[in-house]
Amino acid sequence: MSGLPTRVEIHEEGPREGFQIEPRTYPLAERAALVEALAESGLPQIQVASFVSPKRVPQMADAAELFAAIRKRTGTRYTALWLNEAGFDRARAVPQVDLVGSLYAYASDAFSRQNNGRGAAEFLQDQRRWVQRYRDAGLAIESACVMTAFGCNLEGEIGEDRLAAVLGELATLLRDEGVSCPTVYLADTVGWANPHSVRRRVDLVRRLLPGVRVGLHLHDTRGLGLANAFAAIEQGVDLFDASVAGLGGCPFCGHAQGTAAGNVCTEDLVFLCHELGIATGIDLERLVDAARLAERLLGRRLDGKLMHAGTLAALRRRA
Amino acid sequence: MSGLPTRVEIHEEGPREGFQIEPRTYPLAERAALVEALAESGLPQIQVASFVSPKRVPQMADAAELFAAIRKRTGTRYTALWLNEAGFDRARAVPQVDLVGSLYAYASDAFSRQNNGRGAAEFLQDQRRWVQRYRDAGLAIESACVMTAFGCNLEGEIGEDRLAAVLGELATLLRDEGVSCPTVYLADTVGWANPHSVRRRVDLVRRLLPGVRVGLHLHDTRGLGLANAFAAIEQGVDLFDASVAGLGGCPFCGHAQGTAAGNVCTEDLVFLCHELGIATGIDLERLVDAARLAERLLGRRLDGKLMHAGTLAALRRRA
Repeated sequence: MSGLPTRVEIHEEGPREGFQIEPRTYPLAERAALVEALAESGLPQIQVASFVSPKRVPQMADAAELFAAIRKRTGTRYTALWLNEAGFDRARAVPQVDLVGSLYAYASDAFSRQNNGRGAAEFLQDQRRWVQRYRDAGLAIESACVMTAFGCNLEGEIGEDRLAAVLGELATLLRDEGVSCPTVYLADTVGWANPHSVRRRVDLVRRLLPGVRVGLHLHDTRGLGLANAFAAIEQGVDLFDASVAGLGGCPFCGHAQGTAAGNVCTEDLVFLCHELGIATGIDLERLVDAARLAERLLGRRLDGKLMHAGTLAALRRRA
Repeated sequence: MSGLPTRVEIHEEGPREGFQIEPRTYPLAERAALVEALAESGLPQIQVASFVSPKRVPQMADAAELFAAIRKRTGTRYTALWLNEAGFDRARAVPQVDLVGSLYAYASDAFSRQNNGRGAAEFLQDQRRWVQRYRDAGLAIESACVMTAFGCNLEGEIGEDRLAAVLGELATLLRDEGVSCPTVYLADTVGWANPHSVRRRVDLVRRLLPGVRVGLHLHDTRGLGLANAFAAIEQGVDLFDASVAGLGGCPFCGHAQGTAAGNVCTEDLVFLCHELGIATGIDLERLVDAARLAERLLGRRLDGKLMHAGTLAALRRRA
């Protein structure tokens, strides 16, 4: 273990993760208000929307308009996701998007085939073209994310040897292309991680890619999300994706028969950090307000716990 | 740290925790079926109901009939809660109740006054009469539970010195009365614990009461329930209360303005243990079936995560 970090950086994924799986599209003004409320809490990065096919994901068709509607706050980056060149070009055309150069890899071959129509090795080799595109656009590569880094519903458990192989191929690609990548995310895309596998795989990244910062993209699919985050924090991991109110686990949208689950809940994760004495730069009360706004907006009880119980700050002051 | 236990014992609290705060009383046959389904999973102990004032808790008025209706399974204890002598006498009159001698203490004076009309010190001294009652009934004292052992909404954080004082008074009482108490539970009654405070306080019990087994009664009020359980498991704690499907956190019952939360979710905790390679003696698939039965019975989405996503066993077999 590397000991507790003094500060943990948390990136908000809720606006994209949450709304992309909702059965209906919510008013743009309401989504903009949620992003603004999240930024007001001091979150350093918010993924606002994805630039993907409006036919496949109609909820994200107005991504450009959404970005334009947001009153931006200094100190927060407003990022977007894209999956192909057309999406990247649409994102680049929107001046309000804070472009981030990210690479992706799959640890599960079957999952890659299902999502992309090509295997994990081919998908990874395609990232060379993204290196070139980002270079042409003057964008540094900030991170690479290994999806299904723990397991996958098609292939089962992903062995550590497999993950090691993917990390090795990634290192080769970066060396070949003459670029560096300061951060590597491990994504538990469909909820296979446990606290011990998190620790072992974080160690693996550190051994194979010395000096890289490890981030975690955890989903709370089977209830272990915050236990996994805690195990990682104790190991010095200081970078997490999270989703306000646990957004993304819509029970009614028919997504994978209602079994989808959002990222770990942002405000519950911030609460964990603060209770452990770790700074996040986030105003927890304001973040809880944003979570409650999300709940009012969606009109149903969301998964977050702290937002319903309330923080301890007021109770401590009163005592 | 004492290292991982090879086996963790989990006691089910859902039937009592859950139904006592529901606004309506569910049919006795349905509650009996849920208890039977829980027992079928191999749970070693299930708290079925409480023998309390039917005026204050009408949902538990038919506790005796409920016990009589359950087809019991060998290997499971079917326990009950009582808060005063009248309740104990009612429980003793029901042959199906597996009586357990338990003592209680409060770390929060204000919480004790609110719940019992007398302070923590007086409440603890009253336990001497319970020692006598259990002795008269031929019941061994199995455990003592310190409630609000981490914090309380009235007094705020409970200091470790306060907890140490309560444990000291408890030790004195046991010595005076000439009884032993093999297990001490720390209860995070209203959700103030975090993984580090759990570890420090488990250590405190072990230092002050050498040889005692430490159990934890954790509520998932602010989302840290399983992170707290994991921290304790890593420290060798092998005894937990839990609640199927996270029952107890009814959002609609007006209990403390909808801010109540159940115990840590039984099947999510069992999943955590099994993923860590720790035995529980529980059939997780059957337990998930029981959680889904609870959801059908209550007619609304419950908090458990695994019950919605499904276990990994079938996915591993398929892979």
